[in-house]
This record gives sequence, C-alpha cells and structure tokens, in this order.
Amino acid sequence: MSEPKRLILNLFEMNCVSHITHGLWRIPGNGRTRFNDIEYWTELAQLLESGGFDAVFLADVIGAYDVFRGGPETAIREGLQIPSNDPMLVVPAMAAVTKNLGFGITFSTTYEPPFAFARRMSTLDHLTKGRVGWNIVTSYLPNAARNFGLPDQIDHDTRYEIADEYLDVLYKLWEGSWDDDAVIEDRERGIYADPSKVRYIDHAGPRFSVAGPHLSSPSAQRTPFLIQATQSSRGIEFAGRHAELIFTGGTSFEQVSGTIARIRDELERQDRPRDAIKFVVGATVIVAETHEAAEVKLREYEEYASIDGVLAHASLPFDPTVHDGDITLGEALRREGRADDLQAAFLPKELTVAEFLKSMKGFHRKPFMAVGSPVEVADEIESWLVEHDIDGINLVQYHSYDTAKDFIEYAVPELRRRGRLREAYTPGETLRERVHGAGPRVAETHPAARFRGGQNLAHERAPELTTAR
Amino acid sequence: MSEPKRLILNLFEMNCVSHITHGLWRIPGNGRTRFNDIEYWTELAQLLESGGFDAVFLADVIGAYDVFRGGPETAIREGLQIPSNDPMLVVPAMAAVTKNLGFGITFSTTYEPPFAFARRMSTLDHLTKGRVGWNIVTSYLPNAARNFGLPDQIDHDTRYEIADEYLDVLYKLWEGSWDDDAVIEDRERGIYADPSKVRYIDHAGPRFSVAGPHLSSPSAQRTPFLIQATQSSRGIEFAGRHAELIFTGGTSFEQVSGTIARIRDELERQDRPRDAIKFVVGATVIVAETHEAAEVKLREYEEYASIDGVLAHASLPFDPTVHDGDITLGEALRREGRADDLQAAFLPKELTVAEFLKSMKGFHRKPFMAVGSPVEVADEIESWLVEHDIDGINLVQYHSYDTAKDFIEYAVPELRRRGRLREAYTPGETLRERVHGAGPRVAETHPAARFRGGQNLAHERAPELTTAR
Repeated sequence: MSEPKRLILNLFEMNCVSHITHGLWRIPGNGRTRFNDIEYWTELAQLLESGGFDAVFLADVIGAYDVFRGGPETAIREGLQIPSNDPMLVVPAMAAVTKNLGFGITFSTTYEPPFAFARRMSTLDHLTKGRVGWNIVTSYLPNAARNFGLPDQIDHDTRYEIADEYLDVLYKLWEGSWDDDAVIEDRERGIYADPSKVRYIDHAGPRFSVAGPHLSSPSAQRTPFLIQATQSSRGIEFAGRHAELIFTGGTSFEQVSGTIARIRDELERQDRPRDAIKFVVGATVIVAETHEAAEVKLREYEEYASIDGVLAHASLPFDPTVHDGDITLGEALRREGRADDLQAAFLPKELTVAEFLKSMKGFHRKPFMAVGSPVEVADEIESWLVEHDIDGINLVQYHSYDTAKDFIEYAVPELRRRGRLREAYTPGETLRERVHGAGPRVAETHPAARFRGGQNLAHERAPELTTAR
Repeated sequence: MSEPKRLILNLFEMNCVSHITHGLWRIPGNGRTRFNDIEYWTELAQLLESGGFDAVFLADVIGAYDVFRGGPETAIREGLQIPSNDPMLVVPAMAAVTKNLGFGITFSTTYEPPFAFARRMSTLDHLTKGRVGWNIVTSYLPNAARNFGLPDQIDHDTRYEIADEYLDVLYKLWEGSWDDDAVIEDRERGIYADPSKVRYIDHAGPRFSVAGPHLSSPSAQRTPFLIQATQSSRGIEFAGRHAELIFTGGTSFEQVSGTIARIRDELERQDRPRDAIKFVVGATVIVAETHEAAEVKLREYEEYASIDGVLAHASLPFDPTVHDGDITLGEALRREGRADDLQAAFLPKELTVAEFLKSMKGFHRKPFMAVGSPVEVADEIESWLVEHDIDGINLVQYHSYDTAKDFIEYAVPELRRRGRLREAYTPGETLRERVHGAGPRVAETHPAARFRGGQNLAHERAPELTTAR
C-alpha cells in the first residue's frame, strides 16, 4: 500500500490590515492592525513552525483599489490592502527566528528591473537556506501602472510576453552565470571564486538588456521555488512552462478539476511531466472542539464582514448599495446607464440587488470550505485531496492568529493521525524538496535548467555591449 | 561647562566577502566568508548592540569591477564585492534580534523605480521602529549600467539631476501622501484610515510619473535618516540640499576640513542650519591591550593584503604588475601606449612602479588611522572630534568580527570614561534622534518638510492621469 497523499499546508497572508476577509480586522483581539510591527511577523512565523506549516504565502499589490466609487476612499476606509508594506522584507525577520518554515513571496514582472530582483531572491534564498518561493504575477491594477510611470495598465497578453522574457533573464542569472563549483574559498592560493566558472549572461532581447554576471553566488535552490496563480489561456501556457506550484480556485469542484486537467495537458505539450506542478487552493477552515462551537465562530466572523470592502476589492464599476434592494441588478445597471458596459457583462443581472449584495458578502472560499469539529474538517480536507486532485491549501485567515492557532490545535493532530501531515520537518530541506520530494534545484525538464553551466546563453550581444569591454 | 562632543560610532560593512580590506578574508578565523548566512548578520547585530554602536553602515554595488585587466576576473578571484548580496534584506534579520542598533543602507537613485523603493524604506522604518537610514548614491560602475539596460553609465551631472527628481517623488510619498492622523483604527465605525487625510501625489515630472497614494502608512521617521557620500561640486550642492549625515574622507585633515567647510557653506546657501549635517569618516582603528600588541595585529593584517584586489577596486586602466619595478609609472604608461589617456591623468607618474604598488597596498584610512593601546586610540579619536570638526567614524573592518570585538573591549570603555560615547541607549529613540538629538521627523528646514499635510503637491497632472479617475 502506498502512503496517503500528504497535504501541503500554507497560511495565506498579506502585509496589510485587510487582505480578503474585509471588515474582520474589527473583531476584538484580531491582531491584523499589528502588521507594521516586526513582532507580528516573528511571532506568526514561530507559531506556524510550531504547527508544522509548510510555508506562509504572502500576497501583494503595488497600487490602490480605486475603481469602485471612482476613487480609493473605500479601500482606505476599509484598510483594504492599503496601507500595505513590502512582502519581501518581512521574510528575513521570520527566517531569523525559524529553521524550517517556507516563504512564498508575490512579486510582479511588469515594473521593476530583473537584475535587482534576481539578486534580492538569491539573497533571500541564501538567508533562508533555500526556503523561499516566488509567486510570479504580472499585476492588474490600473493605479499600479500609474505608480510606475505608465498611463494605464499594459494589456494582459503583453504582460505575459514581458514576463516570459523577464524569466529568461532571471534563469540565465540564477542558473547560467555561476557554475556549481565556482566558489572555492582557497585561502592558500588567495582564490575566493574561480573566474573561469563565472560568466556574463549578455542578454539582449526585445525588452531587456542585461550583462551580468549575477552578483550572488549559487544559493541552495538557485532558482527560487516557482509559484503561479492564473486561469486565462495565455496564463495557463505561461504557468505550464514555468510553475512548480499553482495557486488556483473556482466556484465548483468541477471547474477547479477542469483547470487542473488543462494545466496538466499544457505540461505535457511542453514536455514536462504531468505531475511537475502541485496545486493548492485558497481554503476556509473554521475548526473547533465541536461542530457547534465552529458554527458559532463562523457566525461571529460573518457578523463583522464588510460588504463595502468586498465591493471595492472586486473593483465593481458601479455602486449597487445606492439602489432599491428589490430591483434586479440589470435594472440598476440600466438606471446607471451602464447596462451595455463591458465591465458589467460578468454580473448576474437576473438577481435582485439585495440578493446580489448578499452573494457578495461571503468571502468564504467555497467549495473549499470546511466548518466543524476536527473529524469533520479532516474528512472534508481529505476529500479535496483524494477526490478533487488538490495537493494542498492556502488557509484563509479570518482572525490573526486564531485561524492558525485553531488549525494547529484542532485540525493538525487529526490530519497527522491520518497520515495527511508530516509528524516533523526534515532538517535542512529546501522548499522545493519539501513540496516535490526532489531538488534542491529545478528539474531537468524545467526551462530554467537549459542554462546550466552557461549553456544556451545566447551571446547575440547588442553592439554597445561588446565594444565597452 | 558643556558636555564633551560625542562620537557617532558605526561599523562599515558590506554584504560580500571583500569590501575594502582586500585579501584579508584569508586570515584564519575571519568570518567574512559567512556573509551568505543569516547567522553572520544576527550575531554581528547583537555584538554591535552589546558594544553600544550607533549603526551598521552597509555599502553596496550593483555591478562588477571589470575595468582592471579588461574583465571581472580579478574581482571574482579576490571576492572583491562579487559575489555580493542585497544590503536591504539583512536589515530585518538584524532588527529581529536587536532593539537599538541603527542601519544605514546604500541604494542608488539611478536604475530602480522610486515608488517601489519608497515602500521598501517605509516598510523597513516600520519594522525597525525608526532605526533606518538611507545612503543615497547614484552609482558609477559601467557594468552596473549594463545590468540595467543601458550601454554605459549616465554622466555624473545627469545622474544628480535624476536623483533630485527621484527625491522629490520620495518626499511627496513619505511626507505628503498621508497626514499624521490619517490612521484612526476606529473599530466601532469600521474606519481604519480617514480617506480625507490620504492623497494621490500625482507627480508628473520630466523623468518620473507617479500617482500614489503611498502604500505605507506613516512610519516613525517617515523620510528615513538621509546619508550621502560625495566630494564633487554637483555632489556637494545635492548633499547640501538633502543630507543629514555625510560620509567623507580625504588624504589629509586639511582636505577633509575643507570639504566640511564647503558643505556647511552650501547648507547656508540653501537656508539650512550650518550644523544640519553631521560628518563621519571611514577610520582604521587597530586597538589592543598594549601598543605593541596592536602593532603586531596591524602587521598581521598587512601581510594578508592583496595588491590585486586594491588595483581592481581602483578600476586601474592598465596593469602595473607586469612592468619592471624600477621604471617610472610614466614610462610604464608610455610602454602601454596610454600616457595620454584621460584615465591615466590622476596617476602619480613620477613614482617607480614598485613605489606605486607599495603606495596602493595600504587600505588604511589615513589620516584617520589609530593603532595602539586604549588610551592611545582614544587620544587620537578625540583629536578627530575636537580638532578636525569630525562627528564620528565608520569603522573599517580588517577582520570580522575581531575589529568590532577589539573596539568594544578596548576602545569603548576608554571613550565612555571620557564622555565620548554614551553609557546606554535611549530606549525607543529613532536613528535621526540619536544622531541629531532632534526628530523623529526631518527638520522644518529640510526640503522634504515642504510636502507635509499635502502642501506643494504640484498636481499639474499629466493628462492621462486625470481622465481615468
């Protein structure tokens, strides 16, 4: 008999007050308003490590949600991802007080130069001894574009084209610029690194020119563990090429299974194994000693939910809250003169405004929602693993740190009993090895691997790059 | 009687093997090769805090030294600032294990977007509770330019023009985008921040377009403590406008005093107080129980010095080591066919090659060099403070951690006895308050202050920026 499939267990976090469970920062004792403090992060990291979490997954935005009601006011009032701080900078603090917890960091390929980012991730991989992952995003907020000098966001497919070249630059720096045995630390001969094993990358592509050499020496994983979250066709092609873990979701189990199947097909098209990517979903788990106690907790959380926060987060192009609850959404849109708006197309126009608002209120991650006793939530989570081809969860926080504490107290022991969570960490394991059971470097079938040992560095130098040396 | 002038005491560091004392990483027991490890940084931070250091000052480069001998080979062999990791990312690790130590971080205004950097520094100011400073540089290595998509470095004065606008953007984000009382955390009314006290900056200048609002809420210092290192005329104008501390140096006390006097004049021209900037110098302090023991230590350090490292660091445009030691440098240059090179103009052509190489070998920070017993080095350091208008030192490391340990064991008690170092930290003090005795915010006379409360935000919006809102 084979071992039971093990759950990948991450906490879903963001360096801000209100990430997705809007309004809940107001619950007495909720620690979300401490996000500016280093102690919030070091205590959290120690808590998660004490409970055997695989990683903390840090979301990010680089702009304000300022579409709803025509400005950022609602987001600011709600603490909806503004204020928000840099996610990367809390990782070294958490790494300083832990030995095993992994870190997934969101960073966008659209606005910042690849050379600096490559060094930052290598630095983190060194500091964490290989515990770092990168959630590759391309950004979508119009305000983000305006923060980086553009009049509006770059269109979706172009962002992915940029991202593809961005990753090539990174792979060349991470995998191709230094050989494994370049650093020799020969004190006798006074040679720290062997120059014949370090090289320029001389990338000269349509969007980026980067000479190298990479400034960091080889870290444990080299290329950080690669994470992606997408559902579009262009996104799936991109993820099928680059990702090692995908953060996905959907409104039904069937939809999610469909996405996963499509990505596995894409993997095959790109000559990567069908299991080269693990899949995690955002999940709501409210667990207590008894079913009743969990239900009480859920109702308390729901009482604090803010519909304004949810609407602003959805960048809704009009304000349904000013309309009569009994009219249909379609009628409300007509009254706004926006019935034919492209942005209105996805809205359920047949619902009444009241029904629509009620449907928006829940930020639960249905269908991945488990509320109940330890046995009940473990049953539910097991069914995701076994019946729906899921490998793990990003646990959505309703209360910091109660969501994690409850999970550790009630769900972890039950899942361990069933062999769904490990009993202890494997010391010195990198994040890649933990998730895939192989590593610490990217697989040979991964596109980053083709630059190893300086192979495939194009060296079709731009003329300016040759003359100056 | 007034109190004795107190020494600002910083350790000079860099996230690499060989920062300036090239070759010394080979000394048995020197910990420089541990720079990739988080423990190197956390242990160092705790050591410095135990000894009452004001701050650790982190240098940086974003390219390789590849001029000497026409390539990066010498730098790579020497570990000369390559490999090097990001300086910013070791700060949260050090902050997690200390309460008082300050951090000066080098970052260049030339290649990365201001919006992201503004948030990173605000994040660090939050995480450190106001203990962070920024060493503003504009970068000079040709290879750095090629790592960021440019064929060669931008000329010196243009770099400063860019830097001036860059700082305006940062000041608007740090000082102007959020009012002091914007964050109210009103759980009853569900208001995290008051939107009427948060605003777009709508910067639309010749080089940067940045909408805002700033993503971070106000941190302790807002604008991090501002540090600069320069000697050129354009640089002095820039530093006179922006700096709160200047890291300077020179070949004689007179030269340094002259630079300081010129900067104080510049401060006056810009309507800032003549004492609005403190001055620190790089200093060599080799201290032991006795004079003889210190001399022995110095000679050991000198034995390990690498002339190749020094020559590569100086980006010397030719290789003197291949020439006969008895000929003059002028003759060697003629034989290279480079006697008329612009880059050769600064070289002492009358020295013999052997004399020149000997003069290059020393990386001591003369005239700020003190070697001897506790009383001797304290006498010397006091003379810098009293006779040469210096406010403090960046202690150059010959050995990690021995340089800091020796200073703490031998020099600190003697300097404390003389009232030149404080006996203990003032709890909760920001870096600005520690250095200037005022703060935590920039002074009213500083150009950053003009944006407070949203004043002077130009709002000459680029047309594209208005329509989308």
